[in-house]
Amino acid sequence: MTNIQNLLINACMSVLNNIAVILVQPQMGENIGAAARAMANFGLSDLRLVAPRDGWPSDKAEAMAAGALAAMKPVQVFETLEDAVADLNYVMATTARPRDMVKPVFTAQGAAQEWLRRARDNQTIGLVFGAERAGLTNDHIALCSSIITIPTSADFSSINLGQTVLLVAYEFLQAQSDTPACTMDHGDSEPVSQEKLEEFVKRLEDELETGGFFRSEGLKPTIRRSIRGMFTRADLSDQEIRTLHGIISALIKK
Amino acid sequence: MTNIQNLLINACMSVLNNIAVILVQPQMGENIGAAARAMANFGLSDLRLVAPRDGWPSDKAEAMAAGALAAMKPVQVFETLEDAVADLNYVMATTARPRDMVKPVFTAQGAAQEWLRRARDNQTIGLVFGAERAGLTNDHIALCSSIITIPTSADFSSINLGQTVLLVAYEFLQAQSDTPACTMDHGDSEPVSQEKLEEFVKRLEDELETGGFFRSEGLKPTIRRSIRGMFTRADLSDQEIRTLHGIISALIKK
Repeated sequence: MTNIQNLLINACMSVLNNIAVILVQPQMGENIGAAARAMANFGLSDLRLVAPRDGWPSDKAEAMAAGALAAMKPVQVFETLEDAVADLNYVMATTARPRDMVKPVFTAQGAAQEWLRRARDNQTIGLVFGAERAGLTNDHIALCSSIITIPTSADFSSINLGQTVLLVAYEFLQAQSDTPACTMDHGDSEPVSQEKLEEFVKRLEDELETGGFFRSEGLKPTIRRSIRGMFTRADLSDQEIRTLHGIISALIKK
Repeated sequence: MTNIQNLLINACMSVLNNIAVILVQPQMGENIGAAARAMANFGLSDLRLVAPRDGWPSDKAEAMAAGALAAMKPVQVFETLEDAVADLNYVMATTARPRDMVKPVFTAQGAAQEWLRRARDNQTIGLVFGAERAGLTNDHIALCSSIITIPTSADFSSINLGQTVLLVAYEFLQAQSDTPACTMDHGDSEPVSQEKLEEFVKRLEDELETGGFFRSEGLKPTIRRSIRGMFTRADLSDQEIRTLHGIISALIKK
């Protein structure tokens, strides 16, 4: 399962190359490192910094990134947000606070869909994140075409820079991932055929008949359906049916 | 926008009460605190610990939780996972590694949908997370009905305990949130009516006509449509139309 997931994800990874993550005036190297790691977790590789408070490169960022920075394009440093987004087609600002500006406001998932739409058009996208406490100024946001706001609990809404990058990057990878919402891995064994399932259920019923399990002929059809229901619902494998046969054999001997 | 989001989220919050987060043998208090904070961010409030290495309560967890623990139900501590999930109806194990066990494997989003389906049936759900390095043992997972695996980049797949809880909790809040993928907040101003938009476009065209902007009669219809397109696409507000009228007036004077 995971191997198939990874293959799918690698195949799609090139699309994620058209996304730049821009951190505006980040204060702590640790947070830059955490953001880099979150990006690498979800296949993003273009990190840009606008006027990082403690300069660049940063030992603290390197330590926190745990190898993520080496796995990405070299980090670019700019003096202004204007410079950092100059080569991009569409720029989205991440902010928790509502602003008195008329702009589309996306959820992270909605933003990822918007990106997919634009990626088909070969557009490059910038995701802009503000400083740890202050966030983005209105002037920063005015440079962006739209806003991303992550819905959180009203009572406890503060999420940090690394977590915000993590959630947004996560949604962008999800948006172009073909991983189905639910899969079933039968391991080395195959899903059982209906024939073998039926064979097992019949055998069980015969043994139950012999053992005097069905006391009332009237209730028998209902109880049989109930027993059958448990096993058809369980989505069994070949191996599991063999195990169930073994259980019956062992119980009979006893 | 955010106020409306929060209202919606508060209204739905009671459903999130049927979810318990269970950390099995967590090692560092900091990670328990980070998990608690992530839960509070997305409205979860039932945290259970199985045999935490450094005992409970934990000063380090309190510090990292930044008030989240106080906002939740009192944390319950159990000796075994069996005890911790005894009162729950359906239990999901979070694991990154594939296991040789036949179980449904959900994405975090798929898991949240499965929860919603079961919540309608008043079922209580447990989300089980393993220790920092080792994760869950096969015996732990055998106690669970299904698996949650978060798709990550193949090259950089390691996400920590707090981040895993954050992503899963995020998906559970999203699943029952009515926040639309995209909204537009016009602030104090109203979206402009088509009549006022038309009035503005006509005025602009008239002024352009007067200024000799349309040099070719043949191209005029195309250029007019192009100009109109920019303004109809921009989803303007009343206030913005007033600003645009002001711009024309200022440019004419010049």
